[in-house]
Amino acid sequence: MKSFIPPQRTLMGPGPSDVSPRVLEALGRPTIGHLDPAFIGMMEEMKGLLQYAFATQNELTFPVSAPGSAGMETCFVNLVEPGDKVIVCQNGVFGGRMKENVERCGATAVMVEDEWGAVVDPQKVEEALKANPDAKIVAFVHAETSTGAQSDAKTLVELAHQHDCLTIVDAVTSLGGSPLKVDEWGIDAIYSGTQKCLSAPPGLSPVSFSERAAEVVKNRKTRVQSWFLDLSLVMGYWGGGGKRAYHHTAPINNLYGLHEALLILHEEGLENAWARHQHHHQALKAGLEALGMSFVVKEGDRLPQLNAVTIPEGVDDAEVRSILLNDYNLEIGAGLGNLAGKVWRIGLMGHASNPANIEYCLKSLDEVLSKMNAPITSGVAVPAAKAVLDGAAQAS
Amino acid sequence: MKSFIPPQRTLMGPGPSDVSPRVLEALGRPTIGHLDPAFIGMMEEMKGLLQYAFATQNELTFPVSAPGSAGMETCFVNLVEPGDKVIVCQNGVFGGRMKENVERCGATAVMVEDEWGAVVDPQKVEEALKANPDAKIVAFVHAETSTGAQSDAKTLVELAHQHDCLTIVDAVTSLGGSPLKVDEWGIDAIYSGTQKCLSAPPGLSPVSFSERAAEVVKNRKTRVQSWFLDLSLVMGYWGGGGKRAYHHTAPINNLYGLHEALLILHEEGLENAWARHQHHHQALKAGLEALGMSFVVKEGDRLPQLNAVTIPEGVDDAEVRSILLNDYNLEIGAGLGNLAGKVWRIGLMGHASNPANIEYCLKSLDEVLSKMNAPITSGVAVPAAKAVLDGAAQAS
Repeated sequence: MKSFIPPQRTLMGPGPSDVSPRVLEALGRPTIGHLDPAFIGMMEEMKGLLQYAFATQNELTFPVSAPGSAGMETCFVNLVEPGDKVIVCQNGVFGGRMKENVERCGATAVMVEDEWGAVVDPQKVEEALKANPDAKIVAFVHAETSTGAQSDAKTLVELAHQHDCLTIVDAVTSLGGSPLKVDEWGIDAIYSGTQKCLSAPPGLSPVSFSERAAEVVKNRKTRVQSWFLDLSLVMGYWGGGGKRAYHHTAPINNLYGLHEALLILHEEGLENAWARHQHHHQALKAGLEALGMSFVVKEGDRLPQLNAVTIPEGVDDAEVRSILLNDYNLEIGAGLGNLAGKVWRIGLMGHASNPANIEYCLKSLDEVLSKMNAPITSGVAVPAAKAVLDGAAQAS
Repeated sequence: MKSFIPPQRTLMGPGPSDVSPRVLEALGRPTIGHLDPAFIGMMEEMKGLLQYAFATQNELTFPVSAPGSAGMETCFVNLVEPGDKVIVCQNGVFGGRMKENVERCGATAVMVEDEWGAVVDPQKVEEALKANPDAKIVAFVHAETSTGAQSDAKTLVELAHQHDCLTIVDAVTSLGGSPLKVDEWGIDAIYSGTQKCLSAPPGLSPVSFSERAAEVVKNRKTRVQSWFLDLSLVMGYWGGGGKRAYHHTAPINNLYGLHEALLILHEEGLENAWARHQHHHQALKAGLEALGMSFVVKEGDRLPQLNAVTIPEGVDDAEVRSILLNDYNLEIGAGLGNLAGKVWRIGLMGHASNPANIEYCLKSLDEVLSKMNAPITSGVAVPAAKAVLDGAAQAS
């Protein structure tokens, strides 16, 4: 058996996205102790950087020591108690995971369902709120990674607050990639991932809780069912101030990587990063549409960082992805759940959202699909994308 | 704000331990997808390497995507159901954490208490088993990191099985450092950490479940309370065979590091690694005793990789550790819980268990304690350790 030397891929799936060489370098720096004052200084900086990324002043802002799914679970197990009622909006895979979380907390999930590919319908949410005056929380996915739909978080939070509900928001794919304003929108609890638009490796889940949410946690009647994710304990370590008490051993080197990734975002500027993702999405979209492919999500509701497009007729999903991976070292994403086999998910996330990737992806797709005699228009995708990238699209 | 450049420490606390440059290099390799066939090939190798480290053929052997505490929680939430009775042995901090886990599963913990620093007393466990014929599980810590005591896992498992109980064993600090034979001893569920004798960074928790334990999980009456840690779901990804289904996004780069760390263990050989830890422990012990320090745990019950010694009288715990850290870049561990302020915990784990570290630690302690006029014998520690390292101790 030998050391594992991974191939050098271009990661344009639903995450992980390409990781910047700066972040990879940070990961390999010498491990130090989780209670080392030097490490604790880094944690303080990380808190500030995460507050910047989330656009929040929330004190309770830190990375959970596990991937995004554990961030989701952190929000639910801390805010939900047995017997509670939670309105869960589902318009893709991750709303279903929220339901699982609610039920495993011994609570009831009232489902508000929308088509996969549609956004969460505020009107349906309002009806559910009216029909369930005892609901405590509204939970929804801001950026549904399984379809590429971006719901109107601001409106949904407003509605929830009008009915005296807290909100839990999945921002795994939106953080750092499209507008997200935790304080301005009044989001109560939010979780994200590191391997999407932050372009750090997977393994950590940034979360943030409003004061109101923190109060609810503080006033629980029952103990949090997870020891590992219990905020009252975790905050002894991440809570800031002078003393940091040992709770669990933090994933030191992964945190080096996240620190560097957040620093890169800070250097670029949050609004610039959002604009870059939007601009590159327009270019990729022009190319994909020139090929003849269509989007799952309707215009205006799309995430710039996650482009779900329908697979051309007669084309074998797995075969194309396999050729792209093996012959082009290019990863694009398969469909999940209801959309398995029907769509591809092309990510333009963080460090991976750049002109070279757009051209490479379009050129590769064009070549592979042409060889398979797929019903596409060959030779026009890259020029169409380039026109947008060069800013010429507007003039034409 | 700038990139975080950690200082280069010598890590001789209770973990994280010094990470090998080979492992650090592996961490920084390019991120690839969690469903990439190349990654899945690595996962297969990792399973084999973990089975080797645990000395088991258990199919259900994989690293949980979070630190050791989450490995503990994985064992408890999957095996324990509401209303169950679990015998929990406590002889330090981590038995207390097991109790927390049991109670948060809605089960009852029957505590078997031993002094901090003592091993788990099999006789007390037998009494508890006789008094609680309805107990389902016996849980204990093999290597208690808070005290350095090593309990007799083989005997405790035999007792549990005689009374038809399953066993959950904490091997966070023993894996790779001292004899641990999962199959030979019949352990049913075991969890460990990566940042101790495997000398990988923290963030993953290797676990292994016997067929009998897997059956119990399969036949649960209630759903596992954690979605993230639910084995029936996680195994869709880690279960092996052809198809790997997405459950959560694995911490890719951390897994590169663990693969390399396990490879290093495999190259050295498990029994050689155990012998090395034991040999170096003898050398450190000779040095510490020459200084005039005494062990918390009685001879014969000590973990070679975690040396808990009483702080000399009149010496300020925090001040010494702070001087060692700041002036010597040397981290040793503080006491936890009942032992806070009373002991130091000096780790000799994995890559950090080497002659240079032993000499450096003894020399540094000698210098700092001498300056503080502590009641120690100066100038003899390093020669005493060297005598053991050179194999001369036996002859003298």
